[in-house]
Amino acid sequence: MAPPSRYHDNRLPTPQQNGGVVVVPAEEETEAPLPQCENQLDPDEFRRQGHQVIDFIADYYARMGDYPVHPSVTPGFLHRQLPDHAPSRPEPHAFAAALQDVRDLILPGLTHWQSPRHFAHFPASSSTVGALGEALIAGINVVPFTWAASPAATELEMVVVDWLGKALHLPGSLLFGGGGGGTLLGTSCEAILCTLVAARDRKLADIAARSSGKGIEDLVVYCSDQTHFAFHKAARIAGIRRENCRSVATRRGDMFALSPADLDAAMRADVDAGMVPLFVCATVGTTQTGAVDPVRELCAVAAAHGAWVHVDAAYAGSALVCPEFGHVIDGAEAVDSFSMNAHKWLLANTDCCALWVARPAALVAALGTEQEYILKDAAAAGHDVVDYKDWSITLTRRFRALKLWLVLRVYGVEGLRDHVRSHVRMAAAFEGMVRDDARFEVVVTRWFSLVCFRLRSPESLGGEKAANELNRRLLEEVNNATGGGSGAPYMSSAMVGGVYMLRCAVGSTLTEDRHVREAWKVVQDRAASLLRKMEIIACWEVANQ
Amino acid sequence: MAPPSRYHDNRLPTPQQNGGVVVVPAEEETEAPLPQCENQLDPDEFRRQGHQVIDFIADYYARMGDYPVHPSVTPGFLHRQLPDHAPSRPEPHAFAAALQDVRDLILPGLTHWQSPRHFAHFPASSSTVGALGEALIAGINVVPFTWAASPAATELEMVVVDWLGKALHLPGSLLFGGGGGGTLLGTSCEAILCTLVAARDRKLADIAARSSGKGIEDLVVYCSDQTHFAFHKAARIAGIRRENCRSVATRRGDMFALSPADLDAAMRADVDAGMVPLFVCATVGTTQTGAVDPVRELCAVAAAHGAWVHVDAAYAGSALVCPEFGHVIDGAEAVDSFSMNAHKWLLANTDCCALWVARPAALVAALGTEQEYILKDAAAAGHDVVDYKDWSITLTRRFRALKLWLVLRVYGVEGLRDHVRSHVRMAAAFEGMVRDDARFEVVVTRWFSLVCFRLRSPESLGGEKAANELNRRLLEEVNNATGGGSGAPYMSSAMVGGVYMLRCAVGSTLTEDRHVREAWKVVQDRAASLLRKMEIIACWEVANQ
Repeated sequence: MAPPSRYHDNRLPTPQQNGGVVVVPAEEETEAPLPQCENQLDPDEFRRQGHQVIDFIADYYARMGDYPVHPSVTPGFLHRQLPDHAPSRPEPHAFAAALQDVRDLILPGLTHWQSPRHFAHFPASSSTVGALGEALIAGINVVPFTWAASPAATELEMVVVDWLGKALHLPGSLLFGGGGGGTLLGTSCEAILCTLVAARDRKLADIAARSSGKGIEDLVVYCSDQTHFAFHKAARIAGIRRENCRSVATRRGDMFALSPADLDAAMRADVDAGMVPLFVCATVGTTQTGAVDPVRELCAVAAAHGAWVHVDAAYAGSALVCPEFGHVIDGAEAVDSFSMNAHKWLLANTDCCALWVARPAALVAALGTEQEYILKDAAAAGHDVVDYKDWSITLTRRFRALKLWLVLRVYGVEGLRDHVRSHVRMAAAFEGMVRDDARFEVVVTRWFSLVCFRLRSPESLGGEKAANELNRRLLEEVNNATGGGSGAPYMSSAMVGGVYMLRCAVGSTLTEDRHVREAWKVVQDRAASLLRKMEIIACWEVANQ
Repeated sequence: MAPPSRYHDNRLPTPQQNGGVVVVPAEEETEAPLPQCENQLDPDEFRRQGHQVIDFIADYYARMGDYPVHPSVTPGFLHRQLPDHAPSRPEPHAFAAALQDVRDLILPGLTHWQSPRHFAHFPASSSTVGALGEALIAGINVVPFTWAASPAATELEMVVVDWLGKALHLPGSLLFGGGGGGTLLGTSCEAILCTLVAARDRKLADIAARSSGKGIEDLVVYCSDQTHFAFHKAARIAGIRRENCRSVATRRGDMFALSPADLDAAMRADVDAGMVPLFVCATVGTTQTGAVDPVRELCAVAAAHGAWVHVDAAYAGSALVCPEFGHVIDGAEAVDSFSMNAHKWLLANTDCCALWVARPAALVAALGTEQEYILKDAAAAGHDVVDYKDWSITLTRRFRALKLWLVLRVYGVEGLRDHVRSHVRMAAAFEGMVRDDARFEVVVTRWFSLVCFRLRSPESLGGEKAANELNRRLLEEVNNATGGGSGAPYMSSAMVGGVYMLRCAVGSTLTEDRHVREAWKVVQDRAASLLRKMEIIACWEVANQ
């Protein structure tokens, strides 16, 4: 398929016209045509382009409500519109032309996570300060892998993770002030992997010291059948055998929480079979239904087996900024580690996962490095300096602390509470509307801002399978209401205990009460239409029997 | 230590004054004081703040030369200046105040990686387009973990990794067009870990099928003693035993490249001992000296043992945009995977690691997920759609493709060549100046834009250890020349084969010929002063014998 040669100034040969390459010996560089912009970090050019970008983004926010949340495109739609190689030389006014393509080609093909009608997955919570914090990070572009590699970046990270931990009412044992400490990573997947590796190496050292003859293949990790796949992925990466990952079954009667008694039984069975319990991943706010595992009781069970307990509060951790949610982590003083994604629901833009550990030394023992080429700073000698490269998978890292510091500073803890509470209030309103309509049921009691609901199966239909299919069709129709036009909300689904349900996760910064009301109206309309169609089909079937 | 209450509007209580928390039941939310900014994604507010940030960054670039590259601070300097908790409510004009603190408190405590006098480590290559690409990514803030989660983001990533692969003259077997494929991750650490896990699981499946009785504890990985610690870290994380990581010794006579004959011997010895060779990490452009491992020959050795070969070209991969460097990956058609950091030397700002694999199915088999809550899009059914969550450690990911696409589009392949060649030319000039001064030696022949050099040890000193100490002092004096003032360059060091050397890595976007000349002048001056001091000491010692 011949792409348009849109990127090429016709006066210059493309690489294809030119046999693929242009060999310009380094010595003759001054003879070669000069690039359009000689200094790619020119302040004036940055200012000119930067103001264009700011206006572009502001316009996008202003028009956000006009976009269908999810695009009506088929695979290959964008691929077909782009050349199959990068331009050799930029076309004139390349930056402006590229921005125009972002507007005309790319934005229409995106799922707009910032749409006020985005209720799928969990939110990717944006704010002006979060977005501009990222811009500032990218502009400054330092790489604080050690304290010496950018002292202020490391120190700000240490300060801001303690700030955040306090704002979330975490136990002091997880903060630098209390012997623990935190760091900012990209995602919860990384946080879980880092802690799992720390736990694994600690356990293997312990095993080796006792000459028990056990090894990595005997280690067992535990979660519930509601735990995010990130944990399974982390366990696989860390070399835990797939068959040694216990997904303890949950029950609707327990609101799909991990049962301490069941965990205890699973651990005892493993010990009896000669296995070694290693790690428990408890979740506060599961992905499917927002379930909350009982932290205190799980820690007690794990302690009896010397297993590490990590709390994954990727989504709901943000709610802890409100004291009224503090009870969901009762007993967290006993956990080994805790993580949450400030980019999910705390206005911090992707990515920003905060991880706290009670014993940083275990992380450093597993992930630490020591090589000559890593500059040791004379100023740091004798001080208890954190080198964050030893706390994570990666060595290169971004200055995420700057963004989180700006968010906390500019919105304040109360501002973040207002933000979370407004979404909780809207979710409660949505839940109320569902309860008021007898055709529907709320499948799981709401904890935070996620509502799990579904159409009750009409008697004429019968059977769980048919009800699931009905709700599957309902979601499809809701997401494609108004032909995928700008009025349709975008929700996702869960399948828990054999029950298929719709998920309405309130959390977009732009969502207002009216968007929630309108979304519910769409659900009702589509349900009515669907049920009507089914009645017609049922009548037709009866008539033809 | 009581911090200043700088963040607090005195009319509002701090959390400390208020017993730590303010309980506002959700129902009473409208009664609580409203946040300063009700819509945290307000387009006008974004525009206002955004233009401030752009001007802030532009001013930073304009004043970059005025900053000492490395700050003269001691641990705790920033911590002491910040309150120990986040503000409850923002102070008036909080955003402007925060930017002022960035300027007055944070910038002076950073190591300025974008300084034209930053010659340490490897560059963190910035450009206006790279920085603004990041701003755009953060502003749009989509999370393209599957095709359906933002179709255009996935498709642009597929297009742009092929564009980059072609621009770098990679073999077609690594591109989507040729049966392979690429993705954009954060760092090389992630890239190496992903491929290592893919290789491990493939090998373990193979072992299980042959009922050989071998397991993960028998797997051995190979690198040279020059390979970046990222590989050791990845191997540890993946559960490879620390004692099963072979760092094959290199020699100065081989320019510190991994010897295929030595690799072969190591593999054979392991096989004879009942171990299973798994993975070879070859480096093109090692961190310490820029050494280049012979890819073709290493692939041939690895093939005989069914081992996976990954090429880590984190730094030097960018140089492949220039055809004159193509020979350094001769034989790359046989590699299993290849990664490079476009954020190091290709104007793409942190972070942007490109990873290509010859057989994507191996990645997906190891890292793939399948869960109900991941939305399957009807439009994608039946198409060969890439869900990038199955190609990486993380599920959440940023829309890095947008930035890389902008960089390639706006600078063009020739623009990137000019950029790389200008640094190579400056490094060659620096190398020439070192060679012209008989007191110095170039320790390792330069491949790219990194010069490794040192003061020859004066005869009166004698001994390698003394020479190392001399050069260690030289680096310290160079980096602290002009009292760490704005004239001093910032370099780093390497210790290879017992030889301590200084590293001058040219690559900052703002570096011009004069900065390189001035840096050399500082090195010469400091060396002269150091040698003079030593002569005086030597005289004094002779006189006192």
